Amino acid sequence: MSTLGIVKRNITRADAAAVEKLGRFGVATIHEAMGRLGLMKPYMRPVYRGARICGTAVTVLLQPGDNWMMHVAAEQIQPGDVVVAACTTDNEDGFFGDLLATSFQARGARGLIIDGGVRDVDELERMGFPVFSKAIHAKGTIKATLGSVNVTVVCAGAIVHPGDVVVADVDGVVVVPAGQAQTVADAAEKRESFEGEKRAKLASGVLGLDMYKMREPLAAAGLKYID
Amino acid sequence: MSTLGIVKRNITRADAAAVEKLGRFGVATIHEAMGRLGLMKPYMRPVYRGARICGTAVTVLLQPGDNWMMHVAAEQIQPGDVVVAACTTDNEDGFFGDLLATSFQARGARGLIIDGGVRDVDELERMGFPVFSKAIHAKGTIKATLGSVNVTVVCAGAIVHPGDVVVADVDGVVVVPAGQAQTVADAAEKRESFEGEKRAKLASGVLGLDMYKMREPLAAAGLKYID
Amino acid sequence: MSTLGIVKRNITRADAAAVEKLGRFGVATIHEAMGRLGLMKPYMRPVYRGARICGTAVTVLLQPGDNWMMHVAAEQIQPGDVVVAACTTDNEDGFFGDLLATSFQARGARGLIIDGGVRDVDELERMGFPVFSKAIHAKGTIKATLGSVNVTVVCAGAIVHPGDVVVADVDGVVVVPAGQAQTVADAAEKRESFEGEKRAKLASGVLGLDMYKMREPLAAAGLKYID
Amino acid sequence: MSTLGIVKRNITRADAAAVEKLGRFGVATIHEAMGRLGLMKPYMRPVYRGARICGTAVTVLLQPGDNWMMHVAAEQIQPGDVVVAACTTDNEDGFFGDLLATSFQARGARGLIIDGGVRDVDELERMGFPVFSKAIHAKGTIKATLGSVNVTVVCAGAIVHPGDVVVADVDGVVVVPAGQAQTVADAAEKRESFEGEKRAKLASGVLGLDMYKMREPLAAAGLKYID
Amino acid sequence: MSTLGIVKRNITRADAAAVEKLGRFGVATIHEAMGRLGLMKPYMRPVYRGARICGTAVTVLLQPGDNWMMHVAAEQIQPGDVVVAACTTDNEDGFFGDLLATSFQARGARGLIIDGGVRDVDELERMGFPVFSKAIHAKGTIKATLGSVNVTVVCAGAIVHPGDVVVADVDGVVVVPAGQAQTVADAAEKRESFEGEKRAKLASGVLGLDMYKMREPLAAAGLKYID
Amino acid sequence: MSTLGIVKRNITRADAAAVEKLGRFGVATIHEAMGRLGLMKPYMRPVYRGARICGTAVTVLLQPGDNWMMHVAAEQIQPGDVVVAACTTDNEDGFFGDLLATSFQARGARGLIIDGGVRDVDELERMGFPVFSKAIHAKGTIKATLGSVNVTVVCAGAIVHPGDVVVADVDGVVVVPAGQAQTVADAAEKRESFEGEKRAKLASGVLGLDMYKMREPLAAAGLKYID
Repeated sequence: MSTLGIVKRNITRADAAAVEKLGRFGVATIHEAMGRLGLMKPYMRPVYRGARICGTAVTVLLQPGDNWMMHVAAEQIQPGDVVVAACTTDNEDGFFGDLLATSFQARGARGLIIDGGVRDVDELERMGFPVFSKAIHAKGTIKATLGSVNVTVVCAGAIVHPGDVVVADVDGVVVVPAGQAQTVADAAEKRESFEGEKRAKLASGVLGLDMYKMREPLAAAGLKYID
Repeated sequence: MSTLGIVKRNITRADAAAVEKLGRFGVATIHEAMGRLGLMKPYMRPVYRGARICGTAVTVLLQPGDNWMMHVAAEQIQPGDVVVAACTTDNEDGFFGDLLATSFQARGARGLIIDGGVRDVDELERMGFPVFSKAIHAKGTIKATLGSVNVTVVCAGAIVHPGDVVVADVDGVVVVPAGQAQTVADAAEKRESFEGEKRAKLASGVLGLDMYKMREPLAAAGLKYID
Repeated sequence: MSTLGIVKRNITRADAAAVEKLGRFGVATIHEAMGRLGLMKPYMRPVYRGARICGTAVTVLLQPGDNWMMHVAAEQIQPGDVVVAACTTDNEDGFFGDLLATSFQARGARGLIIDGGVRDVDELERMGFPVFSKAIHAKGTIKATLGSVNVTVVCAGAIVHPGDVVVADVDGVVVVPAGQAQTVADAAEKRESFEGEKRAKLASGVLGLDMYKMREPLAAAGLKYID
Repeated sequence: MSTLGIVKRNITRADAAAVEKLGRFGVATIHEAMGRLGLMKPYMRPVYRGARICGTAVTVLLQPGDNWMMHVAAEQIQPGDVVVAACTTDNEDGFFGDLLATSFQARGARGLIIDGGVRDVDELERMGFPVFSKAIHAKGTIKATLGSVNVTVVCAGAIVHPGDVVVADVDGVVVVPAGQAQTVADAAEKRESFEGEKRAKLASGVLGLDMYKMREPLAAAGLKYID
Repeated sequence: MSTLGIVKRNITRADAAAVEKLGRFGVATIHEAMGRLGLMKPYMRPVYRGARICGTAVTVLLQPGDNWMMHVAAEQIQPGDVVVAACTTDNEDGFFGDLLATSFQARGARGLIIDGGVRDVDELERMGFPVFSKAIHAKGTIKATLGSVNVTVVCAGAIVHPGDVVVADVDGVVVVPAGQAQTVADAAEKRESFEGEKRAKLASGVLGLDMYKMREPLAAAGLKYID
Repeated sequence: MSTLGIVKRNITRADAAAVEKLGRFGVATIHEAMGRLGLMKPYMRPVYRGARICGTAVTVLLQPGDNWMMHVAAEQIQPGDVVVAACTTDNEDGFFGDLLATSFQARGARGLIIDGGVRDVDELERMGFPVFSKAIHAKGTIKATLGSVNVTVVCAGAIVHPGDVVVADVDGVVVVPAGQAQTVADAAEKRESFEGEKRAKLASGVLGLDMYKMREPLAAAGLKYID
């Protein structure tokens, strides 16, 4: 359970090598490697085509219409981090724009995942600062209410602890618990190594029905072919 | 009414020449040529810019979170087909990715229309395999429950019979019953032939009010101009 | 309150110089310059990447499934105008396509803002006719029911009077009342002039916490740092 | 595929005895008896608590904002019918109110299923005329555009042919093809006859795990109990 | 265009007799009497069954997550008023509960219309304080940011000026401009006086097709009867 | 992070006395007592009027279209528990009906909170088994895929650990971490004790502006009264 008005300074980030390794795989592969868990909801979309992020989470819990905590979060960013922003209620205001992006980038942040809105999207693309958000909205915010930084949050349906690995690409956003980063990276690698062979077979016209030996279980389940 | 656990092997596909002819027109034109019917709901969007499909439908009825029937469908694909996937309930899981796309493409499929989610979107674009879907979602699926292949389905609000022509472009997705393919193609051609002249007139500054002779019916309906 | 069946011919457009000046700023900046008011809802999106509009509003009130009034509106367009279309109920039909765009463009319109659907999106992009809409939908409309032209409308949550300035870019759509155009343009300019310096500071690593002197108010509000 | 501007007068209604028998079962039971098919989407809700319908479908295809065809449909109603109204596009206008309900009721209709909006809800309840709809909306409609009556329609995601049985209760709306009415009614009866015994066992504290013999398949699937 | 931080004290309320007269009609009737205009969107629902309001608007413009202005509005309430609350952005927090209801009721308010969330719904029903809202949500709000009171607002898609008449019942919410209250009330009365006779005819089995003389225009439009 | 295929048998439930005490307060009060945290999203609604729950959580993680784990969960229920069901993806199928309710009730469960659909709503009301859900849907489910029981889940946006206290009423659903149950119950009691006096003052006509001493801070924030 998060508490408001708290900033945790010392967080345990996932192992850097494991993070880099996870960065080599797609979101779909990592999610499968985790046993099909850890995904955010599909309304989280990149604000520009080609955006992609992999880094360790600095979390922020925002209040609706208020981005004060984003500035507090900026100070906690270390190179390689991704800011993950949740809100205490559904709100699509533009909590984030090019000035904050400039600040986050200067601190070494690799991007932003926000269950809310952002603006200055053209500038974000020009800066090469990737953002995945629920909405694009010019609506400005105020700086009046406390939230928290580096507490556990629920962002777009996924639990994110500070220091967890967050990977985002065109297929979505996945969260890997810090303690599982290496294991999941290894499982993703293994999974991907099998795919090349499968792809070649399927490309040659072999059916999944045969490659995966599905004909028998399908018949057992009662599948009927008619003409 | 569809029945589960059925695969129909012999379906009557729309006439090939009519399909090719339909492929020359936009979705909006074809829909008008059909008397303003046959459209899927507008939440069906191309997963990459520039995607466009025209082909004959192989239909699939999926169960939520389960893509087993996609593999069964692959075997029923003939060159020129489009797979049209419906689901027994609303579900945005990623039923389809690059491996299935490789298989479908090897069988000659021209694309996929799915009332659900897909993943590996970057690879789909690289492969040139067009997909129109309700969502992009990395969420993986299982292979445990029977649906059906080549039964009549409702996909995004439109009835699709196996063998119908499906045309998809940036404006949406339209379904032309197999038996009406030639008639609709001819009507679309006729409709389009009128458009060039209209466009030229409008471009020259002639008003639709005059070109379509609307001033009198508007006045009759009671339209009032005030200053 | 709008009345149906009315076309107002003489409207007072915002001052041309003020309009041009507003055109130099982004939607987010203008909205802030207006005291954080005037935005349409974030579901209004450009139909192609790079679309951008600034002009004076010719307003249309449509009926669901009916675009008759769009033709009536065409006659009221003057060079530099933007057509702003509202509907008496939620409706995503394709009220607008390339023929109407040709006509609007010939009259000097700079674009369309529509709380509904449009089609022929590829042609709109080719023509360079920017449109911001709620939906892309091939669904055709009829011409049977009166709405109004140049009455006050609510479009995507914002009040628009004929002659108001409408600015649209990737961040959204903002409406500036005609009488405030110059003031808001000046305020936007002033606001933007401050941003360069701020951006440079943030880029150099200065934190917003220090630049905006937030540490004291945050502490006063009770923010606690823990390790 | 429906065609606009058509009224089919002679339709084959499901067998009356089968309809009455179906009326004794709940929607969930009937849907299971059909092999888990035939349901409309869950956004279809009764407009008042306690509404319940079972009857044979007279179908209507409406145009957005236009209820002309409802009057055409009234003439086709026979005692025991249910009017099932679809629309060519998503539209929540109030197509139906107490006057039409009075007319439908006078003709012997048992209720209305509409993929759109209705109004005069308090009067509908007072009259005892059950309606299941997508929305309640006071918005009035016009009478200007042709749709069709007694063609096959898609209503809230389900295919409905004229004469099919439609059953609606608090759990939703299910469509039983006319030709399957007796078979489905019998299957529903059988299904329900098993439920009493199951209920008694579960009420006595027997677990579904044991009653359905699930422990072994769960273990085979890999379920692990930890303390 | 509203301005933030403003409270207008002297507003011109609609004529009291006209307000009382409007209170005798349903929302659907009043909306028709206004030429089918003035309705809020159908997501506005009564928080308890049987809620009904008619009164003059005191308007409030709220900020997301902040109900400070509700207290400012309380002082502006006169007996017979209805508070109409809009928000500068979509937000479903619980801006209003039993304490504010107690205060509003003590001031003579007849109810609340809010494009947001409310809580303490059971108490509101017990108090007999009717509320129409977008959501029911326990989420509490703060008191930190200025909005405005008695400025023109857009609430659920409808323009509301302070002093306008607002009528709400199970069919929705309609806004009658203060200056049109008497005219609309008279038109509603006239409209309703015609309904009794129509209802009796329809109840006796006369078809709308005949009563409204629709057969000829339907045939002219091309309607075809087939067997 | 949850893992699939796990059932945790020994969980630490919140202190029984604290649970009973929490049961005396409304959801809005408890949420405020927790510092405005712990609420589920407002789409979670009681399936019948008057439903109310307070108990300790037995959690279930379901797969889409599959309710196998509900049977596994039944065995873990102890008197006073509430089953809290999440799903690995958005899915509104009817995972729960009267048979499972009978089983849960026999085990001593006080209700169900489910981020999905349920059916047999009339029977649930008759049985007095309260359910809060995202949807009512007759759609049946299968029993084929493993999820987990008594792992940490995200249900409707809130983190729920097994053993936490869940309170649900007409205003929503709130989760109190087991370890904070007593503290929150005490804070809720204190909060409520202040409300009676406030209510009496407001009922007597005292304004919140005066009671909460808001006039000065409002003026300081720049609020302007105009006539």
